[in-house]
Amino acid sequence: MSPWLRLKKRTREVVNVASSADDHLSRVFDVTVMVLVAGNILAVILESVEALANRYGPFFAVFELLSVAVFTVELVLRVWVAAEDGHRGVSEWRERVRYLLSPMALADIAAIAPFYLSGFFAMDLRFLRFLRLLRVLKLTRYSPGLAVFAEVMRSQRAAFASAFTVLVLMMIFAASAMFVVEHEAQPEAFSSIPASMWWAVATLTTVGYGDVTPITPLGKFMASSIMVVGIGMVALPTSILASGFTELHQRHLRTLEMEADRAAADGVLTDDETTQYNELAEQLGIDPTEAQQIVEAATRSFQALDGEEGICPHCGKGATEA
Amino acid sequence: MSPWLRLKKRTREVVNVASSADDHLSRVFDVTVMVLVAGNILAVILESVEALANRYGPFFAVFELLSVAVFTVELVLRVWVAAEDGHRGVSEWRERVRYLLSPMALADIAAIAPFYLSGFFAMDLRFLRFLRLLRVLKLTRYSPGLAVFAEVMRSQRAAFASAFTVLVLMMIFAASAMFVVEHEAQPEAFSSIPASMWWAVATLTTVGYGDVTPITPLGKFMASSIMVVGIGMVALPTSILASGFTELHQRHLRTLEMEADRAAADGVLTDDETTQYNELAEQLGIDPTEAQQIVEAATRSFQALDGEEGICPHCGKGATEA
Amino acid sequence: MSPWLRLKKRTREVVNVASSADDHLSRVFDVTVMVLVAGNILAVILESVEALANRYGPFFAVFELLSVAVFTVELVLRVWVAAEDGHRGVSEWRERVRYLLSPMALADIAAIAPFYLSGFFAMDLRFLRFLRLLRVLKLTRYSPGLAVFAEVMRSQRAAFASAFTVLVLMMIFAASAMFVVEHEAQPEAFSSIPASMWWAVATLTTVGYGDVTPITPLGKFMASSIMVVGIGMVALPTSILASGFTELHQRHLRTLEMEADRAAADGVLTDDETTQYNELAEQLGIDPTEAQQIVEAATRSFQALDGEEGICPHCGKGATEA
Amino acid sequence: MSPWLRLKKRTREVVNVASSADDHLSRVFDVTVMVLVAGNILAVILESVEALANRYGPFFAVFELLSVAVFTVELVLRVWVAAEDGHRGVSEWRERVRYLLSPMALADIAAIAPFYLSGFFAMDLRFLRFLRLLRVLKLTRYSPGLAVFAEVMRSQRAAFASAFTVLVLMMIFAASAMFVVEHEAQPEAFSSIPASMWWAVATLTTVGYGDVTPITPLGKFMASSIMVVGIGMVALPTSILASGFTELHQRHLRTLEMEADRAAADGVLTDDETTQYNELAEQLGIDPTEAQQIVEAATRSFQALDGEEGICPHCGKGATEA
Repeated sequence: MSPWLRLKKRTREVVNVASSADDHLSRVFDVTVMVLVAGNILAVILESVEALANRYGPFFAVFELLSVAVFTVELVLRVWVAAEDGHRGVSEWRERVRYLLSPMALADIAAIAPFYLSGFFAMDLRFLRFLRLLRVLKLTRYSPGLAVFAEVMRSQRAAFASAFTVLVLMMIFAASAMFVVEHEAQPEAFSSIPASMWWAVATLTTVGYGDVTPITPLGKFMASSIMVVGIGMVALPTSILASGFTELHQRHLRTLEMEADRAAADGVLTDDETTQYNELAEQLGIDPTEAQQIVEAATRSFQALDGEEGICPHCGKGATEA
Repeated sequence: MSPWLRLKKRTREVVNVASSADDHLSRVFDVTVMVLVAGNILAVILESVEALANRYGPFFAVFELLSVAVFTVELVLRVWVAAEDGHRGVSEWRERVRYLLSPMALADIAAIAPFYLSGFFAMDLRFLRFLRLLRVLKLTRYSPGLAVFAEVMRSQRAAFASAFTVLVLMMIFAASAMFVVEHEAQPEAFSSIPASMWWAVATLTTVGYGDVTPITPLGKFMASSIMVVGIGMVALPTSILASGFTELHQRHLRTLEMEADRAAADGVLTDDETTQYNELAEQLGIDPTEAQQIVEAATRSFQALDGEEGICPHCGKGATEA
Repeated sequence: MSPWLRLKKRTREVVNVASSADDHLSRVFDVTVMVLVAGNILAVILESVEALANRYGPFFAVFELLSVAVFTVELVLRVWVAAEDGHRGVSEWRERVRYLLSPMALADIAAIAPFYLSGFFAMDLRFLRFLRLLRVLKLTRYSPGLAVFAEVMRSQRAAFASAFTVLVLMMIFAASAMFVVEHEAQPEAFSSIPASMWWAVATLTTVGYGDVTPITPLGKFMASSIMVVGIGMVALPTSILASGFTELHQRHLRTLEMEADRAAADGVLTDDETTQYNELAEQLGIDPTEAQQIVEAATRSFQALDGEEGICPHCGKGATEA
Repeated sequence: MSPWLRLKKRTREVVNVASSADDHLSRVFDVTVMVLVAGNILAVILESVEALANRYGPFFAVFELLSVAVFTVELVLRVWVAAEDGHRGVSEWRERVRYLLSPMALADIAAIAPFYLSGFFAMDLRFLRFLRLLRVLKLTRYSPGLAVFAEVMRSQRAAFASAFTVLVLMMIFAASAMFVVEHEAQPEAFSSIPASMWWAVATLTTVGYGDVTPITPLGKFMASSIMVVGIGMVALPTSILASGFTELHQRHLRTLEMEADRAAADGVLTDDETTQYNELAEQLGIDPTEAQQIVEAATRSFQALDGEEGICPHCGKGATEA
């Protein structure tokens, strides 16, 4: 392998999430990026406090420049190593462009693009600072925990879409009803359906600021009915999510049970099978005790099918023996 | 087939939800109705903004006329094709009347009736506009996603009825208690039990506007207890819905498992059986990987039942061997 | 049977919940009581409106007298028929006293006791009227739907007790923390820990009236943390209830599965067994389709165990045949 | 056994949670500590009311001294008996130090440390009193009910951590967005991102005080979107907890089923096995009826596996026959 290829391979290992705790350089790189992102979020928050912005303005500016520099170098490295080692020329660059369009790369681009674009376009400085918060998206690379949420969202996406539709329609109905009933009494707060939406959203989400409330008896009656429906609106996503988590867990259990059956199918659990099985259990987030019970049951069930437990207690012959 | 019958049959295909993406005319019809309904909702919302109503009044009026025209033609066509092709005379019209009383047709009627009735009766214009929102009910024809919610609601209707009863009784109790305790201190806000209901509903649904709050120590103590109970009131529908979704999923899984057992009962999974099975899995909203695991387990279990790990103990051949 | 005993037996049938829709008199009795209770609730609510109380005062008074008369007669009849028919003298009255101490009888007593006691003691009239709401407890006799809630509450009582303890402790902690932090800035609203409890309860239940809010930065920070914890406080009862409903359904399914196994154990499902099985399924609130699937699976599984499906496709012998 | 060792052993029994209701002294000790802790909580609450503090100040002081004395003696006794009986010298004290670092001992230390430290350091008296609330932690020793919550929290800790991260990020985003949009219109309420956080937390937790609300149309639109997302924020912990409870119950059921299989594996359920099984069921919080069904099914399933409905095919005797 040429030194160049070796450098590229090593760079890829370093910029990717460290696969083992022993790869110290890769770990240092990961932690540096995470700390830098956290520092950026903190900087955005603190810089919004006028007193701090005035006093530590130069420090914030230097930190921003440094961050953009690091993130730019990081992006360049990632694009460089995106091409498979054997590929060359056009195909090499096609792979890099494809990588640039992946969600992870887009998050990296979104993290630095505003800085560079602000040179070309006049942008509201405050809005620009706010965009720096998008750098937090870079962290998704390091957060396997969010994958479970994403998986549940994905498998329940139809239900969530329906729930969202129902919610939006309920809001339109609620806003319209209150507009019809309260418009005369409070022409300012309920000046139009869009204006009444402010009340409807705050009510159906049970936030209930109380800055706008119905004052006519009919308005209060309708609002009461809408509030009761609001309980249902809050109940829908919660219950979809709850059953989604339960279903995912059941799916994971079934996967583990099939692996246990496969491992126990020859009546013997080799060390390799056990290691592999335990790794799968951990990956699926199954409790170790439960995983142990599952594989025990699979072994027992194999033996039962195989006649080993079917020994007649009277004549000593296997129950399925000829 | 007479040209007349052929026209009727084709019209039925067009006005019904397109069964295949290839029936372009039917798809165009569906999309037109959906866009028109969405446009109507938007028009109701925008027309409520005085500035827009004043400026674009004629446009809104034309759009309304056009919408009613299209919806009227649509209803007439649906009624026409509601009669089975072979039927004639009285039985033909009886079927059409029966169709007119179906929920879907009633939604279509509700969408245009207010317009026609406003010619006969003097109606509040704002209320009339609000009724146009009912046109959204026409969309249920195109929304299979809502069917799951309806199914869960149906299977848990007894629990929901009980929860609603408990909620209403709690509200009456809470309102009465606060009326007794706070009436003297706040004779306006807690003037009667119906008036106190406004506070009770806002509190038990955890909306909590804060426009009416107890001020006496005893009132605050009772209100605190009621708020704690309010958590339970929010918890009831959420938990009923959550367990309802979980139960429905379990029911779907069982249905799929029985289909898998049936398909695997002869030891062979034909292509037809596989296709039918996968279609059922998709229809029931089961994850494809899980569906695959279920059918695999069914096949394996058949083999286990059919002999010592699939080997006939008498002739030594595998049970699923040709 | 003596006419007296026959009258008593018939009275018992009438005052108890009608066991069949054909017992018209019993149905009439049940519906009368239910309507009267509902009317009483309505009367309490309406009488609290001063204008109605002034205008229809005599009507309310007559309705109250009538209700108490009916409820008194009802209670007397129930006590009378509480004694088993064969019993006499002391044992007869012992049974009646035992009945008087049952929850149902206590609810009946609570419904009329305030009226009679008000003759002996001077009681606040408004509080007295409020006590009439307790008459709603009489309805529990007719509401089997609430039994499911009671069953879930009972099986999860330990979890609910723990959740309630956590909630109360959290409220004390929150109130104390805010008292320490905000007392100086708002000596009125946060005058003591009990006073701060008002804020703590409204916040932890996410009601959030906003009549009392922290104003110091430290107070706002602590309040923010408490609000986040408040999500958890709302989550606890909801999740306990949700898993309680799911567990109850699983228990019911298991009961039905065992009944199916028992019915199918002899390979034949008699009409009697089918009727009994379907009744159990309805009583347990299991979906009819699912109940059908369960009994089918039980039959199939019996046949598989019995060797009927275990016919070797090659030699024609049963797989478990000797 | 020397009298000294016997005294130590008996002391250990007394200070530990009574293992049987018959050990009266141990029960008295437990109840005394619990009552004293409850009294302390009450004292902290009541002492915060100025009128009570002025009037009963000396009583509160004496009660505090008494409580600290009892808790100190309790801690000393616990440390003393922490060393195993056979151990001496260094190893004896090492065990005691190890005990002092256990969570339970730390709770005991936290209960009295503030009192002793207040002699050395000048501390805010109100803050000091507040610390006394930590004495409630001593109660965890007596509360097995909380163990279920702790177990669910532990098994779902990854999901909770992710949910918390999402919540915090959402709050930062919401606060930043509202800061950008509303800063100009309300420079006081939305003076900086940390200041806007107050609004964001109250909104995303659906508390909704209403002391700070957006007033610009764009602000209201963004706030509405944030409120809808807020439903999801409330839904996440609830659904994680709900599926956590369900999963824990399933795990307990599986454990009980395995125990039932083990007990039924020899075809006979001895009295010992039955007692042990029922104890496990109670400990796992499984409904007695369900536990009974599980063991019945296990027995039946053993018999089915062991021959044609429990008849040995070779000797003709029932498999579970003596």
